[in-house]
Amino acid sequence: MARVILFLFFGILLFSCSEKSSSTVKTMEVEKPEYAIVIHGGAGTILKKNMTQENEKAHREAMHTALDIGEAVLKEGGSSLDAVEQSIKFMEDSPLFNAGKGAVFTHAGTNEMDASFMYGKDQNAGAVGGISTIRHPISAARAVLEKSEHVMMAGKGAEDFAKSQGLEVVDPSYFYTERRWKSLQRILNSESDKTELSESDDVDKKHGTVGCVALDKDGNIAAGTSTGGMTNKKFNRIGDSPIIGAGTFADNATCGVSSTGHGEYFIRYTVARDIAALMEYGGKSLKEAGEIIINKKLVEKGGTGGVVALDRNGNIAMPFNTPGMYRGYAKPGERVVKIYKED
Amino acid sequence: MARVILFLFFGILLFSCSEKSSSTVKTMEVEKPEYAIVIHGGAGTILKKNMTQENEKAHREAMHTALDIGEAVLKEGGSSLDAVEQSIKFMEDSPLFNAGKGAVFTHAGTNEMDASFMYGKDQNAGAVGGISTIRHPISAARAVLEKSEHVMMAGKGAEDFAKSQGLEVVDPSYFYTERRWKSLQRILNSESDKTELSESDDVDKKHGTVGCVALDKDGNIAAGTSTGGMTNKKFNRIGDSPIIGAGTFADNATCGVSSTGHGEYFIRYTVARDIAALMEYGGKSLKEAGEIIINKKLVEKGGTGGVVALDRNGNIAMPFNTPGMYRGYAKPGERVVKIYKED
Repeated sequence: MARVILFLFFGILLFSCSEKSSSTVKTMEVEKPEYAIVIHGGAGTILKKNMTQENEKAHREAMHTALDIGEAVLKEGGSSLDAVEQSIKFMEDSPLFNAGKGAVFTHAGTNEMDASFMYGKDQNAGAVGGISTIRHPISAARAVLEKSEHVMMAGKGAEDFAKSQGLEVVDPSYFYTERRWKSLQRILNSESDKTELSESDDVDKKHGTVGCVALDKDGNIAAGTSTGGMTNKKFNRIGDSPIIGAGTFADNATCGVSSTGHGEYFIRYTVARDIAALMEYGGKSLKEAGEIIINKKLVEKGGTGGVVALDRNGNIAMPFNTPGMYRGYAKPGERVVKIYKED
Repeated sequence: MARVILFLFFGILLFSCSEKSSSTVKTMEVEKPEYAIVIHGGAGTILKKNMTQENEKAHREAMHTALDIGEAVLKEGGSSLDAVEQSIKFMEDSPLFNAGKGAVFTHAGTNEMDASFMYGKDQNAGAVGGISTIRHPISAARAVLEKSEHVMMAGKGAEDFAKSQGLEVVDPSYFYTERRWKSLQRILNSESDKTELSESDDVDKKHGTVGCVALDKDGNIAAGTSTGGMTNKKFNRIGDSPIIGAGTFADNATCGVSSTGHGEYFIRYTVARDIAALMEYGGKSLKEAGEIIINKKLVEKGGTGGVVALDRNGNIAMPFNTPGMYRGYAKPGERVVKIYKED
């Protein structure tokens, strides 16, 4: 009799367990998309009233193309690393964004680019600072991540490493664009020689950076960020874009983040890591953590900008505290591209 | 009658409030020291059996002197910024430590130094990477913190800025020491040309960095870190020492931290910020947070090193997961200097 009772007891236990686990899986199947990708092209004083129709259209189209490229990789079962790199390479090649071709000029009239990359599976990371001869800084950051024992390299050393890895080398003049050159001249000719913390175009005074975060079918998150820095910058200033924890962060256990904004604040408040830390230690959701850090903490401290982020369940967050942020995301059957706060 | 009851009620309320506040103050007076300062001079394979008596004595004396210098500032009511800068300047001048004079050599036979500084009162920060002509890199980092709108500068730009701020400029040969030169030659002559992640001296194979965190009488925390990097490093590698959130972090609300160890791991896991985040979001004490990050998380990930840290109540933590770490602290009437795990 006792045995029968024991048998019944374990039977019920087993049944209730399998019920639970199947319902958990079911819930996840419904909620979690097969893949997800989110991008940004900079945040700042981007107002509809200052934007021509052509300019707005060009930015929206470029963001759609960047998402198309990354989504194609993910749809075919490619890695989040590839999706992020390919999307960002496209934005680096576009003169619309302050990264790669289209990078702003330093005080000395040069283009100095920064980029970083992080993989959520093993939290390996790579970053390059102040490079001028590598066509795709994001690929240099990925090479540091995958092919080097180091995380961060700067200047000529970073270029030498990128060359040794077979990356495309260009003459520094490749990065020249008339629009950015005029921006620098306008500042140099103005009374103030103050460094501009954002781009100086009248039409879109924004923090120039591009970034991408992706979740692939294997559940791995990757995040990358690339920038041309700030117009008229001096002293080989390094912003947050190549700083792991500030400009870029990825951890499969929580989320991936790419930042854009007033870099100094993003470094001091380790913004990308802070969003993940609020999830990890504070039990917040991605959406809650993003809101707290970008729209509360940073606003209180006076830091402007935003992030794009996604968590391991494919939830997307794109919080920013500026009038606009070039941003968008794609999931199976879902596509969003926005510019202004009210968009 | 109602008025009398009301009067009595508020009287009792007032009394109980003043009781509470005076007891709180009393508790803090007992627990919180007037000031506190903690330093490190690197972590690694530092074993008593490999250390000569003279070498051990020299390191202990140097640490006592560094603490004396910082403590004198704090005792007189000076700021934590001054205490940290003065203590680290002494360690930079000492050839015993891998920072300033005594910095290790890069693959190219140069000395490239990094440093960072953060102030817990306003979380302002400054950092320099890859400089070769400024006698005190920690002072350059402080100048970036206090005199610049930027947080991080690299290479020649950082040196130009430091010069513009009147900091002492030296010929790169100033940083030459025979011991470090021989370390580089030994590696270059050996079969492997692998970068050494730690110093290559037989007597103390350690991660070379110096750092200091201080709490002043006004309750302000400052943290600083300075390093000569790694022997035989290539590609202008940047380690964790100039990275805010990795090598250095300070926030009056939680703690100040200075790291030493295998820098790549400290960057990927934003070690300094992570300890503060565990306190801020996870409700851990400084001691608990330090143990979790250094002796659990980092050990699981394979990262070696340690930190020195103090919280706003002057509690000290010096966790490390290597055989030894040059470390010590001072509070009113209290002084500790240690090297080995069992010390």
